[in-house]
Amino acid sequence: MFDKQKISPLYTDLYQLTMSKAYFMHQKADTTACFDYFFRKIPFKGGYLVFAGLQELLELIAELKFEKDDIDFLHRSGFESNFLDYLAAFSFSSDIYSVQEGDIVFPFEPVVRVEGNLIETQLIETLLLNILNYQSLIATKAARIRQVAKDKILSDFGLRRAQSYGGIMASRAAIIGGFNSTSNVLAARKYNIPHAGTMAHSFIECFESELEAFRAYASVFPNSCILLADTYDTINKGIPNAIIVAKELEKNGHKLKGIRLDSGDLAYLSKKAREMLDKEGLNYVSIVVSNQLDENVIKSLFEQKAPIDIFGVGTNLVTGNPDGAVDGVYKLSETAGKPKLKISENIQKITLPGKKQIIRYLDDDNLFYGDAIALVNEKQPGKMFHPYVKSKSVSLRNKKAEILTKPVMIKGKAVVKKQDIKSINEYLKHRLGFLPEEHKRFDFPHIYKVGISKALMDLRGKIISQYQTGRANA
Amino acid sequence: MFDKQKISPLYTDLYQLTMSKAYFMHQKADTTACFDYFFRKIPFKGGYLVFAGLQELLELIAELKFEKDDIDFLHRSGFESNFLDYLAAFSFSSDIYSVQEGDIVFPFEPVVRVEGNLIETQLIETLLLNILNYQSLIATKAARIRQVAKDKILSDFGLRRAQSYGGIMASRAAIIGGFNSTSNVLAARKYNIPHAGTMAHSFIECFESELEAFRAYASVFPNSCILLADTYDTINKGIPNAIIVAKELEKNGHKLKGIRLDSGDLAYLSKKAREMLDKEGLNYVSIVVSNQLDENVIKSLFEQKAPIDIFGVGTNLVTGNPDGAVDGVYKLSETAGKPKLKISENIQKITLPGKKQIIRYLDDDNLFYGDAIALVNEKQPGKMFHPYVKSKSVSLRNKKAEILTKPVMIKGKAVVKKQDIKSINEYLKHRLGFLPEEHKRFDFPHIYKVGISKALMDLRGKIISQYQTGRANA
Repeated sequence: MFDKQKISPLYTDLYQLTMSKAYFMHQKADTTACFDYFFRKIPFKGGYLVFAGLQELLELIAELKFEKDDIDFLHRSGFESNFLDYLAAFSFSSDIYSVQEGDIVFPFEPVVRVEGNLIETQLIETLLLNILNYQSLIATKAARIRQVAKDKILSDFGLRRAQSYGGIMASRAAIIGGFNSTSNVLAARKYNIPHAGTMAHSFIECFESELEAFRAYASVFPNSCILLADTYDTINKGIPNAIIVAKELEKNGHKLKGIRLDSGDLAYLSKKAREMLDKEGLNYVSIVVSNQLDENVIKSLFEQKAPIDIFGVGTNLVTGNPDGAVDGVYKLSETAGKPKLKISENIQKITLPGKKQIIRYLDDDNLFYGDAIALVNEKQPGKMFHPYVKSKSVSLRNKKAEILTKPVMIKGKAVVKKQDIKSINEYLKHRLGFLPEEHKRFDFPHIYKVGISKALMDLRGKIISQYQTGRANA
Repeated sequence: MFDKQKISPLYTDLYQLTMSKAYFMHQKADTTACFDYFFRKIPFKGGYLVFAGLQELLELIAELKFEKDDIDFLHRSGFESNFLDYLAAFSFSSDIYSVQEGDIVFPFEPVVRVEGNLIETQLIETLLLNILNYQSLIATKAARIRQVAKDKILSDFGLRRAQSYGGIMASRAAIIGGFNSTSNVLAARKYNIPHAGTMAHSFIECFESELEAFRAYASVFPNSCILLADTYDTINKGIPNAIIVAKELEKNGHKLKGIRLDSGDLAYLSKKAREMLDKEGLNYVSIVVSNQLDENVIKSLFEQKAPIDIFGVGTNLVTGNPDGAVDGVYKLSETAGKPKLKISENIQKITLPGKKQIIRYLDDDNLFYGDAIALVNEKQPGKMFHPYVKSKSVSLRNKKAEILTKPVMIKGKAVVKKQDIKSINEYLKHRLGFLPEEHKRFDFPHIYKVGISKALMDLRGKIISQYQTGRANA
């Protein structure tokens, strides 16, 4: 079902269709428009967001078609034939510019820019937000967990607690953020990512004894067997039984892969288990833990020197606990050649007008120094300004710079190569290497500099004053 | 894509497949098993959980088939032919007993009981948890919002912030919990539920003026038009412009449906808007609000006497903020005719053995008094015991009682009629009418009585002592 990257364009908010109909009826179907995707708040009180979901989004947009069922439903909902004929012929033929998937981004940056005709750019809004907000949330969560887990193995065990079918994309985003594998078999097939698993308590209970269950499982999976050790009594039964099976496997030329602890004090039990295994020469047997893990619990386990090799992380990963969503929005920045902004009494909610790009500057140590938001048609700014405090500015002169916002879809066709998920994670690792440590800190991370160019600031000022004097739309 | 209730059985945790293979290899494919679905903690610090997702789950289970793609993938993953032949012929032919969808349930109750062969009952675990945990979470959240919103209109606006495809089922669960409509068009089609929407700020910005935009929209939707009033200046421009259009519509025999406020102080603005509209004789024009609403914000708006008619609720509804998941689990209670339980050092994590049902008792006022968990083959208990404190018991003598756990699928075929979503909500309303108010309170709700029968308590005690003396599996 999830194999074909295809979803009905009805996967949208009704108002996208009603507004499109109004545009159509008012001869605005071919009016040009530019929208920005950006977010305002980094989840988890963190210092950066991992941008994820782009490739999936592009694949879905490329295949977006109103099928007969969709049209019939809209007809029954009161949409008239002439507009439905337009929708029946619809395909996305506009342009998308974006930061590369797996890069790190910051509040207020126009991470994705969509340029094209008004109806097309409007009709993809809900899908774009739905895909990018969630995958970025989970990739960011996963990156935080990877940060504390260092080189240990991380496996996504979240499907059973995922927000229903969200679980599919959670597994993709987890790999982008730095997880090694998933228990989710469909996601493994769909995204070509490694799957992994152990066994459940019920398996143990279905045999006459724990030892018999261990032997039964080991006989079927002699080289990939992770025995669940906490069904009855971890220290007195589970680990001793696992040791018996490990020795039996050794005799036949196999190696027990690991034991799993899913309850109790994981720090205490993992130390005890390591000691018992090592005493028997089973230092190659991994210790796997699970049970309500997140970055904070894992950090604490390492602080207690728990000798854990593999972490299975579920609910807190796939639901992004304690933050259920990235607050990404999609705002009009230009239409019919005129730059636009959204006024608000809250100054931070005034949007940035015009077609924009993000330029990232490096400091003298070749680390990320700050990002400037600039108009696409201005030359690279040598200075950037605080977005709301005009008197605050920093010089960008003589700093190396790169443009982050690049074309990814032109006239509805992807112009970037399909990447495998693991390589998106490689890119993230590479980029995180340039981010100064103080932005990666969990507690009160240093805020990364994001400024706007003089030209953009002036344009915004000009439009606001036009609104105030009634010379612009109001 | 979501129209056919079908999902690949690979939508599961890998260990379900590896354990199944081990059962198969050890001639346990036909061993019987019974599993319980239950949860431990009510989300949102609430007093009850709304049970949702059952019908969707049954439809998915009925169609569960390993297709060629699935089998090929498992083959590439190292599963051998004889087991794959078994899977290729797999269909679910076991029995499911369940509480009715839309009923209210409480911690530790075996809400769903699955009886059949070991592999079948094991293979549906992840899907069952994934569907029931999420829909119950959202239906419960929606019911809380309905509780404070009383008879006002509630619309789900959450798709853009939903955890990707989870948004589809969120809209279904929202209706079960008491919402009137959704902005999600695909969910509206799939579940035959009302869709609703307004307009975006971008629409206003695409016309020369706000008034022109209002007129353009009203001309296309003269009878269902909700005008977004806060794009430039709500009090001085948005509402006056909406009033102009409302009067123009009146002249042509139409009525403006409403105005929407999406920013600023919603209490202040809604009062002001009501006053301005009423002064012009437009008392029929509804006031719609949105912007990070949840049950607490809505409660506060009513306490401030905000005259709001329609609430659009998004992120906090569909992500279940601040709780991302119901902690539902699926535990073995019997296999090969022998009752089973899971031992744990945490007494609350010891599971209840045997095939069980929930019996709900009514008090003298015909309100819900308490639920007893009893074995299916015992006669209706006249007394129930605290699950962990043997000395605490209550009499159930002479109380009216009903059995909540009823057959819903027998030999893989649904034995309950397909219900429309609205009727599931009607059932919830009916049931909530029997729940004493003190369990519905948001702050420290009174804990509903859930006890176990003497026979169940004795069975649990017997098995625990067998484990302790080494006479049972360990």
